[in-house]
Amino acid sequence: MKQVVTFGEIMMRLAPPLNYRFAQAASLEITYGGGDANVGAALAGLGVPAAHVTCFPANDLGHAAARHFRALGVNMDATVFQGDRLGLYFLEVGAGMRPSKVVYDRANSAFAHLDPAAFNWDEILKDAGWLHWTGITPAISASTAEATRQAIAAARRLGLTVSADVNYRRNLWQYGQTAQAVMSELVAGCDVVVCSENDADDLFGIKPQPGTDSKFVSVAQQVMARFPQIKQVVTTRRKTHSASHNGLKGLFYDGQQFLETVTYDLNPIVDRIGGGDAFMAGFIYGSLTYDNPQQALTFGVAASALKHTIHGDINLVTVAEVEEIMRGNTSGRLLR
Amino acid sequence: MKQVVTFGEIMMRLAPPLNYRFAQAASLEITYGGGDANVGAALAGLGVPAAHVTCFPANDLGHAAARHFRALGVNMDATVFQGDRLGLYFLEVGAGMRPSKVVYDRANSAFAHLDPAAFNWDEILKDAGWLHWTGITPAISASTAEATRQAIAAARRLGLTVSADVNYRRNLWQYGQTAQAVMSELVAGCDVVVCSENDADDLFGIKPQPGTDSKFVSVAQQVMARFPQIKQVVTTRRKTHSASHNGLKGLFYDGQQFLETVTYDLNPIVDRIGGGDAFMAGFIYGSLTYDNPQQALTFGVAASALKHTIHGDINLVTVAEVEEIMRGNTSGRLLR
Amino acid sequence: MKQVVTFGEIMMRLAPPLNYRFAQAASLEITYGGGDANVGAALAGLGVPAAHVTCFPANDLGHAAARHFRALGVNMDATVFQGDRLGLYFLEVGAGMRPSKVVYDRANSAFAHLDPAAFNWDEILKDAGWLHWTGITPAISASTAEATRQAIAAARRLGLTVSADVNYRRNLWQYGQTAQAVMSELVAGCDVVVCSENDADDLFGIKPQPGTDSKFVSVAQQVMARFPQIKQVVTTRRKTHSASHNGLKGLFYDGQQFLETVTYDLNPIVDRIGGGDAFMAGFIYGSLTYDNPQQALTFGVAASALKHTIHGDINLVTVAEVEEIMRGNTSGRLLR
Amino acid sequence: MKQVVTFGEIMMRLAPPLNYRFAQAASLEITYGGGDANVGAALAGLGVPAAHVTCFPANDLGHAAARHFRALGVNMDATVFQGDRLGLYFLEVGAGMRPSKVVYDRANSAFAHLDPAAFNWDEILKDAGWLHWTGITPAISASTAEATRQAIAAARRLGLTVSADVNYRRNLWQYGQTAQAVMSELVAGCDVVVCSENDADDLFGIKPQPGTDSKFVSVAQQVMARFPQIKQVVTTRRKTHSASHNGLKGLFYDGQQFLETVTYDLNPIVDRIGGGDAFMAGFIYGSLTYDNPQQALTFGVAASALKHTIHGDINLVTVAEVEEIMRGNTSGRLLR
Amino acid sequence: MKQVVTFGEIMMRLAPPLNYRFAQAASLEITYGGGDANVGAALAGLGVPAAHVTCFPANDLGHAAARHFRALGVNMDATVFQGDRLGLYFLEVGAGMRPSKVVYDRANSAFAHLDPAAFNWDEILKDAGWLHWTGITPAISASTAEATRQAIAAARRLGLTVSADVNYRRNLWQYGQTAQAVMSELVAGCDVVVCSENDADDLFGIKPQPGTDSKFVSVAQQVMARFPQIKQVVTTRRKTHSASHNGLKGLFYDGQQFLETVTYDLNPIVDRIGGGDAFMAGFIYGSLTYDNPQQALTFGVAASALKHTIHGDINLVTVAEVEEIMRGNTSGRLLR
Amino acid sequence: MKQVVTFGEIMMRLAPPLNYRFAQAASLEITYGGGDANVGAALAGLGVPAAHVTCFPANDLGHAAARHFRALGVNMDATVFQGDRLGLYFLEVGAGMRPSKVVYDRANSAFAHLDPAAFNWDEILKDAGWLHWTGITPAISASTAEATRQAIAAARRLGLTVSADVNYRRNLWQYGQTAQAVMSELVAGCDVVVCSENDADDLFGIKPQPGTDSKFVSVAQQVMARFPQIKQVVTTRRKTHSASHNGLKGLFYDGQQFLETVTYDLNPIVDRIGGGDAFMAGFIYGSLTYDNPQQALTFGVAASALKHTIHGDINLVTVAEVEEIMRGNTSGRLLR
Ligand SMILES: [Ca+2]
Ligand SMILES: [Ca+2]
Ligand SMILES: [Ca+2]
Ligand SMILES: [Ca+2]
Ligand SMILES: [Ca+2]
Ligand SMILES: [Ca+2]
Ligand SMILES: [Ca+2]
Ligand SMILES: [Ca+2]
Ligand SMILES: [Ca+2]
Ligand SMILES: [Ca+2]
Ligand SMILES: [Ca+2]
Ligand SMILES: [Ca+2]
Ligand code: NI
Ligand code: NI
Ligand code: NI
Ligand code: NI
Ligand code: NI
Ligand code: NI
Ligand code: NI
Ligand code: NI
Ligand code: NI
Ligand code: NI
Ligand code: NI
Ligand code: NI
Ligand code: NI
Ligand code: NI
Ligand code: NI
Ligand code: NI
Ligand code: NI
Ligand code: NI
Repeated sequence: MKQVVTFGEIMMRLAPPLNYRFAQAASLEITYGGGDANVGAALAGLGVPAAHVTCFPANDLGHAAARHFRALGVNMDATVFQGDRLGLYFLEVGAGMRPSKVVYDRANSAFAHLDPAAFNWDEILKDAGWLHWTGITPAISASTAEATRQAIAAARRLGLTVSADVNYRRNLWQYGQTAQAVMSELVAGCDVVVCSENDADDLFGIKPQPGTDSKFVSVAQQVMARFPQIKQVVTTRRKTHSASHNGLKGLFYDGQQFLETVTYDLNPIVDRIGGGDAFMAGFIYGSLTYDNPQQALTFGVAASALKHTIHGDINLVTVAEVEEIMRGNTSGRLLR
Repeated sequence: MKQVVTFGEIMMRLAPPLNYRFAQAASLEITYGGGDANVGAALAGLGVPAAHVTCFPANDLGHAAARHFRALGVNMDATVFQGDRLGLYFLEVGAGMRPSKVVYDRANSAFAHLDPAAFNWDEILKDAGWLHWTGITPAISASTAEATRQAIAAARRLGLTVSADVNYRRNLWQYGQTAQAVMSELVAGCDVVVCSENDADDLFGIKPQPGTDSKFVSVAQQVMARFPQIKQVVTTRRKTHSASHNGLKGLFYDGQQFLETVTYDLNPIVDRIGGGDAFMAGFIYGSLTYDNPQQALTFGVAASALKHTIHGDINLVTVAEVEEIMRGNTSGRLLR
Repeated sequence: MKQVVTFGEIMMRLAPPLNYRFAQAASLEITYGGGDANVGAALAGLGVPAAHVTCFPANDLGHAAARHFRALGVNMDATVFQGDRLGLYFLEVGAGMRPSKVVYDRANSAFAHLDPAAFNWDEILKDAGWLHWTGITPAISASTAEATRQAIAAARRLGLTVSADVNYRRNLWQYGQTAQAVMSELVAGCDVVVCSENDADDLFGIKPQPGTDSKFVSVAQQVMARFPQIKQVVTTRRKTHSASHNGLKGLFYDGQQFLETVTYDLNPIVDRIGGGDAFMAGFIYGSLTYDNPQQALTFGVAASALKHTIHGDINLVTVAEVEEIMRGNTSGRLLR
Repeated sequence: MKQVVTFGEIMMRLAPPLNYRFAQAASLEITYGGGDANVGAALAGLGVPAAHVTCFPANDLGHAAARHFRALGVNMDATVFQGDRLGLYFLEVGAGMRPSKVVYDRANSAFAHLDPAAFNWDEILKDAGWLHWTGITPAISASTAEATRQAIAAARRLGLTVSADVNYRRNLWQYGQTAQAVMSELVAGCDVVVCSENDADDLFGIKPQPGTDSKFVSVAQQVMARFPQIKQVVTTRRKTHSASHNGLKGLFYDGQQFLETVTYDLNPIVDRIGGGDAFMAGFIYGSLTYDNPQQALTFGVAASALKHTIHGDINLVTVAEVEEIMRGNTSGRLLR
Repeated sequence: MKQVVTFGEIMMRLAPPLNYRFAQAASLEITYGGGDANVGAALAGLGVPAAHVTCFPANDLGHAAARHFRALGVNMDATVFQGDRLGLYFLEVGAGMRPSKVVYDRANSAFAHLDPAAFNWDEILKDAGWLHWTGITPAISASTAEATRQAIAAARRLGLTVSADVNYRRNLWQYGQTAQAVMSELVAGCDVVVCSENDADDLFGIKPQPGTDSKFVSVAQQVMARFPQIKQVVTTRRKTHSASHNGLKGLFYDGQQFLETVTYDLNPIVDRIGGGDAFMAGFIYGSLTYDNPQQALTFGVAASALKHTIHGDINLVTVAEVEEIMRGNTSGRLLR
Repeated sequence: MKQVVTFGEIMMRLAPPLNYRFAQAASLEITYGGGDANVGAALAGLGVPAAHVTCFPANDLGHAAARHFRALGVNMDATVFQGDRLGLYFLEVGAGMRPSKVVYDRANSAFAHLDPAAFNWDEILKDAGWLHWTGITPAISASTAEATRQAIAAARRLGLTVSADVNYRRNLWQYGQTAQAVMSELVAGCDVVVCSENDADDLFGIKPQPGTDSKFVSVAQQVMARFPQIKQVVTTRRKTHSASHNGLKGLFYDGQQFLETVTYDLNPIVDRIGGGDAFMAGFIYGSLTYDNPQQALTFGVAASALKHTIHGDINLVTVAEVEEIMRGNTSGRLLR
């Protein structure tokens, strides 16, 4: 199997233990994550060769972050070490009707200030088969957008599949270019996109046609019309009963068939962060492995469902574990 | 907004981590709490100026307890430091069908042996607008009952609103006076009381009139007839599915209208201790802030619902968080 | 009350904290357990004189294991200290649809290599009234099977009641004798057996008669016909909704009456390991204490239900706590 | 070897982790200890049959304390469960020039209020060879003094050796009888006493004769003259360089020979609490085992030296470990 | 006693537990500190009314920092809540020959971007008697330098004593003005300065006169000549044997007398951060309390010595504890 | 720089926190180590390309061990996953005069049962420049000895430098071949050996010539005479003051010059395990980097000295940190 390459920022995540509020914390637990890197790390765990491309400060925190992903089997050889600080985010884990809460402290990170020229994409991607990025990366700064642009261009040149989780975050996008303009250019180079109805509206002004059976299909059709390179649009639909209890399903459209999965009942939720990244990793794995998109989609959602039982941003599961869920074995019966 | 003053004992709470039984504990987590002080601390968190009046031993444990409430923004300037020991309680947190369990070790505390003359209530209450106490305080000793009596008298003299959570605890009340006699005298000086049907029966021999639509209203009417100073009777109604899953609603009667709230579903419960105190703090906040009692009542119950997701005796929430619950946003959706 | 004696291996259990995966563990929490010993320890907690017979290596780990059971009030005086290593098992605790997972590391333990001649059963059992063992013990090695054989023979000689949890584990039984042959001989000496339909099939080739009302009764009848010493067959029936949520009931047949219990709803599950042992301890307690088997059976299932809220292999509950559940008080209401 | 019986209060010890001050503690580590019980537990670890006699409240804390000593191999069968609360002490561990600090909370404990009639000393001591008590026990209350009196009387009747660590604590002795009067009566029944020059002065008004070579010998001679039953006086001499660094030696006089040991250098000190109890346990072990008092004395001091490297009140060491120190192997070289 | 006011940044300090390296950390312990604020908090612990002036972001981290100092009894009422992020520093605690290591992440903090106009110094200082600041504060940004300038001007107007720890840090001072220029202006308004020989050279180009008896006196004389407002120059002299073992003494010159203290032996060192701040707090306390500067100086050094045994940036000690060290009681003997 | 390849077993190390005894442990901290692998991991940290060759069971524990070394930058691509169990060792950390204590549980590990044919040494070593192994590896089993033999043969064929730490452990070597025979054959293929006087005696019957100036030189000369391939003999000399305080120096002989280093004072010792491996890694680094052996030797000892301040088996230090010690900067002065 060829390598999947991901590109984006990795932050240190700092969270009080258990369900403590920030106001109660005497210590913070460290993990690391980032939307794109989480996909790479989950793929490595599924046995797919994975490399992640990022920029860290050349201090102990940057090295610790690299170490974390190396442990998970992600090739970090293309990491650039320069810049001032590691991006951070603080997470307070909710419960029941109290939501989890994120305080970002990522401004002026080494990644935000990266030099696009530091990445030789033709070299980095030379043995790869797939490039994946998220809408967070070009949202951070003009230089991260430029690097994304160059990565996609190289990937197209080299014949890779390109996927994106468009993932619109209003609070980012503060460097003077609009999400709409930047993302339209970048998405135009993609084969597969994760894009919800809300994302389509916010980024592309695309709304479901009135009176259509499926709003998702209507939106996906318009996205595919606008960006002809795109061959598949996927998304997950989450029903939020409480911070501890959600439902989750997956949706897929490829211009011809509309597919969806059963709804998995997620209860209790151990850690909801990274659920979307786990889905995308699973869907990429499934696309590389199975013959039909229904299995790829179900693998993605089953993988994401398991992620919600696992602490940290990253889905630490095996193919066998996900396939067990796909077969309907969701009973959690003890394995000896 | 004028200061709310609370009066009562603060204990160190010692609990094994997680759901461990006492028999398994190698360490005990420290927090601090007390019915009245929990109300004051929650009010401080809601932005209401709050002061708590208590008595601690002049040792490291007493100072640590004072420090805990000072951190939360409670004015502790009227604390008297004298006496022998800090009251303690040991908490074992249950789960499912195993109840949580409290072992009290509060006898002979500094608070129980306080000298009523040590508190200059006219000075303490001179800038305050509201005095709150609970039925636990006069249950501890003749001197704590006497101090409560003097506090209420001063509050009435100075024109404060006086509220009480009558909170009958059979195991206390061992100093030779009856709860019935002492509490009748003290409740007579109150404007607002938290009083359940059980409390009314145990303390005042008041039972619902046979055949009434609402037992709560029937009881509240008799309480208000017996104690003409009382203008509002409130309570919460808890449905205990398991130690991890409860339902909660609020009830209110003011002589004219009977109000109730929706039932909030509490699942999972992180920490049930202090749920009633969180309600009272929320109801006081609401009474000081909103025009109508329905909003005050709902704020109180919504605040208490959130309390059940928070570790420790004290409700560490903001007004914005409670109002989100009041608006029906109980889905616990991640806040970025 | 006469002593209950149990015989079998005790392992050190090593588990990551909370719901962490093995891949995330920086430390492992220690408890100790073993199917038979868990029964003895739970009985000691219920006030029944209990002794456990086992073999530990004469190193710090063996002594720590003995210490753990001595703390719980189990008489460990018959422990033999010889051999090379303490058996271990590693436990990863699941959640929701992710199952808990056990990695055994028990081969070549001191217990597996025990010398049957080291146990003087006539001396060990001389004051006892009941001997309990599980199907795990004879599955480990020829010498543990031989020791079990001798223990049962002595118990029969001395007039004890003998019970077994037949507990078939395919992964064990690797020393060259078949489970079918060994267990048939050993079960023949028992008065009471825990035996599910699956166990009966795997061990004795007994299947329910087609068309019977109750598969359990059909199987139990055949077991009792095959092994005439057996007077009672019991089992639990578990409905596995998820790793965090199960239902549990108990079944009983004594040749005349078929009894069952209500289904207890176990939600959330704190620790599912040892649930069957807690049932057996409760059933033994009930058999020694109550006049009728319905109460014994219900006590066993109520005890097992409580076990699921308690961390570790062993059911740390009192008779009063179990009887509260039997009375239907499963609401987990706070005890002050 | 015959059983050694100890009598006295056991307290729960609650200490912040590491070197944190009380003001910084978010949790407290639990151990248990008491001067007399520490001797018994250390003896059990040295292979001497040991029983401890005490009184606990019949609550979860009392049972946990009993469990702790049972785990260590101490026979706790004579424990009386009655009374209100478990005695506590809070310990802040110092470092360098900052001393460790103890806050006692032991007033009104179950032990302080024990009923002397609850102990049948003739039964308790019937198989024992040695009774040990400390001066703390009769200091607590008139009833604990009376129980000590009865224990000594029974021991003398039954021909046991009786030892005491006279251990004068000024802060205790508040029940209206003087230490001098009570202790003189009790010490009169002893064969062996631990008594420093300060203790002798405070309790018996005995001061070293001016101009004597050894103040200790001078004092010991007077003590033995006053109390003719006493055959050996021992003590340790501690040089306190800092909270982390002490020197320690032992002194002995038996009316004929004066013995002392080398000074052991204790650096770093892990836990200094219970150092004296570890000495006494070692000296008792040595007296029961060796032919000459020099070895007994050295064993006691070597055991105490090791205690300073062990967390908690109790000396968890083996005979082989102590004898290694006695042989001069204090280099702490790794054991594989 | 009049209030002492301090001004400066407070950072969250994040440190791996124990002596773990950053590369090994799975969690980070939180405390808070800042050179100026540490002085205020230590003064509050010594019973001196203390207020600290700072700027925090209006997020959960800023509020937690304020809470930490409020708990310690510091008046935080003048805190301005605005700006983007809380300054952080990461601390790796060394041992023996491995140094502790700090990674700063304080750029672009709320404090660095503060608006000088947000502080009404005449109001803030109206009841104060002393203003203290450190050279770190004007090193951060032009606006923090400006605010320091205004604070000193107001203090002089209102007749306060002004002190500074000049504390030159080469890595700061990046906003385009030189330390030399800025500090000369600010120091000119001070009565008391902490200034080592190195600081004097780096900041003012002052070197000891060749051939003088005491380099410190020579430097102090020149400093006082250059800045006539200064009446006292003090410093500490540290001998660094290892990260775990230091010696510490204090030096003082007031134009007439040169004073020094004994050298305290610091071994082992629990936490060396904040040792200088503890000295300054102690010296201020001593100056406000004692008649002669020798006692003030010794109190400062004794307080600093104790700080090295205490975890965190802040000296949590009482006057009685420091005076014990002053009396030479450095033996760390257990306090019961 | 060419890759250094190491070969040997990696065990999970399980240790109670802090200085707790096994008898006190409620949890065990996990790290991983093995004499050869520790060298590889330390080299990776020093920037040398490093690969380790080993055999793990294909279970979660084996994968976690691999992950640990991958995180440290060690190439683990040649790992064979087969066999039954991961080798374990339990470590109790001593203090002062109480030694640390290791309980091994490594029998029947996957590594012990490895299949020598599973390693293609010509492929594994094709880009390498150095092979390092320790005397522990051939001591484990005939098959590990055979694999070592094949590795050395391939290395010689391919022209690598071969080094060994002969490290005689009497408790191993139980598979029926003598250490003397096996090691003589293997050492004959080495260029560099770590060999103390004791090792030389135990393995080769080589004793210092009577009357020689340096016993080490005398032994090294004989070793080099016996095994002509050997060009350098090195060792460390440890002075064990206590478990917390050692001295350490290095010795070197190459047939011509005898070199030694200063003695480093190690106080306090955080973790002594892996000190020898840290020395060897440093000496290899130095040999690859510096022109003269004195610097290589000093780098090795300085690196080992730092190791004693670091938790775990592996030396987590940089070249800059070691060179600072080499320059004599052992004062542990805070780095900002
Ligand atoms: Ca989490
Ligand atoms: Ca993560
Ligand atoms: Ca709780
Ligand atoms: Ca609390
Ligand atoms: Ca568990
Ligand atoms: Ca267990
Ligand atoms: Ca301790
Ligand atoms: Ca203890
Ligand atoms: Ca520290
Ligand atoms: Ca701090
Ligand atoms: Ca260690
Ligand atoms: Ca290691
Ligand atoms: Ni949890
Ligand atoms: Ni991690
Ligand atoms: Ni985490
Ligand atoms: Ni909790
Ligand atoms: Ni708290
Ligand atoms: Ni808490
Ligand atoms: Ni849990
Ligand atoms: Ni345990
Ligand atoms: Ni556990
Ligand atoms: Ni303990
Ligand atoms: Ni300790
Ligand atoms: Ni402890
Ligand atoms: Ni420490
Ligand atoms: Ni703090
Ligand atoms: Ni801290
Ligand atoms: Ni330590
Ligand atoms: Ni590790
Ligand atoms: Ni470790």
